[in-house]
Amino acid sequence: MKKLINDPNQVVNDMLEGMIAAYRNRVRRLPGTNVMVRNDAPVKGKVGIVSGGGSGHEPAHAGYVGKGMLDAAVCGEVFTSPTPDQVLEAIKAVDSGKGVLLIIKNYTGDVMNFEMAAELAEAEGIRVAKVIVNDDVAVEDSTFTTGRRGIAGTVFVHKIAGALSERGASLEEVEAAAKKVVQNVRSMGMALTPCTVPAAGKPGFELGENEIEVGIGIHGEPGIEKTTIKTADEIAETLLDKIFDDMKLEKGDRVAVMINGLGATPLMELYIVNKKVSEMLKEKQIHVHETFVGEYMTSLEMAGCSISLLKLDDSLIELLDAPADTIALKK
Amino acid sequence: MKKLINDPNQVVNDMLEGMIAAYRNRVRRLPGTNVMVRNDAPVKGKVGIVSGGGSGHEPAHAGYVGKGMLDAAVCGEVFTSPTPDQVLEAIKAVDSGKGVLLIIKNYTGDVMNFEMAAELAEAEGIRVAKVIVNDDVAVEDSTFTTGRRGIAGTVFVHKIAGALSERGASLEEVEAAAKKVVQNVRSMGMALTPCTVPAAGKPGFELGENEIEVGIGIHGEPGIEKTTIKTADEIAETLLDKIFDDMKLEKGDRVAVMINGLGATPLMELYIVNKKVSEMLKEKQIHVHETFVGEYMTSLEMAGCSISLLKLDDSLIELLDAPADTIALKK
Repeated sequence: MKKLINDPNQVVNDMLEGMIAAYRNRVRRLPGTNVMVRNDAPVKGKVGIVSGGGSGHEPAHAGYVGKGMLDAAVCGEVFTSPTPDQVLEAIKAVDSGKGVLLIIKNYTGDVMNFEMAAELAEAEGIRVAKVIVNDDVAVEDSTFTTGRRGIAGTVFVHKIAGALSERGASLEEVEAAAKKVVQNVRSMGMALTPCTVPAAGKPGFELGENEIEVGIGIHGEPGIEKTTIKTADEIAETLLDKIFDDMKLEKGDRVAVMINGLGATPLMELYIVNKKVSEMLKEKQIHVHETFVGEYMTSLEMAGCSISLLKLDDSLIELLDAPADTIALKK
Repeated sequence: MKKLINDPNQVVNDMLEGMIAAYRNRVRRLPGTNVMVRNDAPVKGKVGIVSGGGSGHEPAHAGYVGKGMLDAAVCGEVFTSPTPDQVLEAIKAVDSGKGVLLIIKNYTGDVMNFEMAAELAEAEGIRVAKVIVNDDVAVEDSTFTTGRRGIAGTVFVHKIAGALSERGASLEEVEAAAKKVVQNVRSMGMALTPCTVPAAGKPGFELGENEIEVGIGIHGEPGIEKTTIKTADEIAETLLDKIFDDMKLEKGDRVAVMINGLGATPLMELYIVNKKVSEMLKEKQIHVHETFVGEYMTSLEMAGCSISLLKLDDSLIELLDAPADTIALKK
């Protein structure tokens, strides 16, 4: 295992310290926790937005803490759900009295721990709403999940919910907007190489020299099939066709596109994937309102990508276009 | 070679098409060239800023085309200098009559071809100034370079020169500011893994299972030494000490820091490196004005990082803080 780390069991702590050192004008760490909070939280008159999950998916989620997106991110150990007490601390730190929305990727551990924290917070008199993101169309049920997994489409939920909350919308309104995103976003990914959890010291799965895995999860959970490497065009087609199968898109519809790198994929290759994706959407006469190409939700040093489509209407477009000022996404 | 590509000989074309598909509201491609130009070029009353070099370093340089940074980027084949005719096209496309500054990373081929283009442009009556960036303190003279190499510190030159040019400064003023950045920026990198140029099909060099290379160039040019993997703290110390040796920094000085990923390094690891870098600067009582952590100048899928320090004064701070609206850097 070759990594730029010190102690494999301290990577999350060291990372958060390095983040704070770089961005102390934006975020702070709640003492004794792995919770990153925007400096001005709780923001008066604003619904608090909390997300999080296992670490190793950077910039998700702490990179999205800031104006227009999240108020706090709860950072678990690598590929490990954060504990309920840490989620509770995040909720308490961002509640201004208007309630808190939890944005949870659909993994059994995350759902359980965030729900437990929600109950604890409600017992303390804080109103909490939850939205569970399950955008990955690859497989039903998986290693750590009942139902579909939550992957990079989650970033769109952060963006839309965050934008609406900045406008002073109620908890019910923010929750409804977040759920609308979940209903309209679909993703699918593939990997060229595995990744290694530092504390484990060896790759979580194996791929042959010319082998890729289609439909893989962001923790290396099994996908649909292992196959020999194909062209970028063929891979884009495989992923997008599966998304189209699951999503009612018609001529004239508007979408946002995310071509997400999983950690070790050169930006060059993501652009090459986007070439095909944009051609396929053009052929279907689907209008691309905005394209995001980069690393938005990674899997340590896994090579590969995911494609997400978010079907838009006027109100989602307005919220997608609204300002955001976070470490990883600025508009 | 596992890559998300189609034809290894078409990667630059396919990438640029994918970029245009994503960002046609920002940039356009000059017909028949690999030159990316901001949509509103030439900008009246503004010195044009042109950079570029071999591809494979994305987001450099096309990702920095836009308001506040570059007016055009000339994209060579992978790790190959762009030809003089393409640089000339870029110069002609961005000159508004106020002249054009070329920002050139110090590689023999780049310097030769940009200088030839400058002569051709001058013959056509366009005023051209040049600045050569040689921030890499690792080695004097290298595989493709006489003198020191230009690496990630180049992005600071883009930022400062671009900001000043937006204010309507003269060619001489913009050139002087760019040269001031070059005098005050130092960088050094290291690699955990090699990378593969698509058309070559195999890695440009080799590293053993526990081996790293310190002082490597962004094309895999030899560094100072191959050594066994060390901790992130030790690696940060090695790189930063070499930078300190070369740079007069005193208690109370102000710097900008860039922790740059080379393509396959998880953001988590870059933050871990920054933890140590910030501690070392604090110990020397050097004030960090701003820290940039991410992928700014990569080497395809090479794992590793570089560290850059830019010594600041009031005027550089003002220009560093000025707005920028590009694909890869927004302020």
